[in-house]
Amino acid sequence: MPILRGTSKKKGYYFVIFGCGRLGSRIANWLSGTGNSVVVVDREEVAFQSLFYEFTGFTIIGDATELETFRSAKVDMADFVLVLTSDDNTNVMIGMVAKEYYNVPRVLARVTDPNNIELFSEFGIEIICPTMLAVENIEERLGFNESDEE
Amino acid sequence: MPILRGTSKKKGYYFVIFGCGRLGSRIANWLSGTGNSVVVVDREEVAFQSLFYEFTGFTIIGDATELETFRSAKVDMADFVLVLTSDDNTNVMIGMVAKEYYNVPRVLARVTDPNNIELFSEFGIEIICPTMLAVENIEERLGFNESDEE
Repeated sequence: MPILRGTSKKKGYYFVIFGCGRLGSRIANWLSGTGNSVVVVDREEVAFQSLFYEFTGFTIIGDATELETFRSAKVDMADFVLVLTSDDNTNVMIGMVAKEYYNVPRVLARVTDPNNIELFSEFGIEIICPTMLAVENIEERLGFNESDEE
Repeated sequence: MPILRGTSKKKGYYFVIFGCGRLGSRIANWLSGTGNSVVVVDREEVAFQSLFYEFTGFTIIGDATELETFRSAKVDMADFVLVLTSDDNTNVMIGMVAKEYYNVPRVLARVTDPNNIELFSEFGIEIICPTMLAVENIEERLGFNESDEE
């Protein structure tokens, strides 16, 4: 758990989520529902339609590659930054800026292409790779492993 | 575990995998490496470049929406059909044909949009949803839950 930054003496943590797609919107709804302060950033206003009516956070329409978006989202105050767009290049860039420039205690970024996992890890960014989770899940469900070969 | 069909008296099971993308190619490599018979189907020949040199299965370039592709892949002999393309509509269609028409013992299909999970389940197809796996994984890693609200 990171040290509280923007949310000292307040209930919950301050999250900035980049990308309000299938993954980002679900995480935003869940974090809002569990009492955290959430700001969600997406380039497309329509993306925010996936947020629940009960969502208590803020939404920002903005290009995550522009510094102004980081300022609007108050990334410097964030306890967590979750970078969940579908574009790996965007994600690693946002993740690095959040980690290195804004010193956000915990940065978690989505990696779509498993071949990029090593690159992301080099930058000290926590990663989430849905493809690799699916690979592991299928492997578990099918229940084969190397020792079954004989 | 299903009853063996095409692979009786042979080592391993007979798998047909539709879609040789990031997920399909990894599963194909793994199943081949664990001693199973694998046929991978994709519309694009270039997709098969993700298969290991050691991959011992077969590849078929074909449109999964054409019955001829099912025949070439000998789906009627398959113990498992894994439908892992990135298109939910294609996946549910292939899954249904494999399950209902070819009576494949075990059919597992990828669902990209979590909103389609219910639809797939109605058809008796096992599903794998990378997005929902990622949601659950992030929830576990962040460690909040409803009881943290106070």
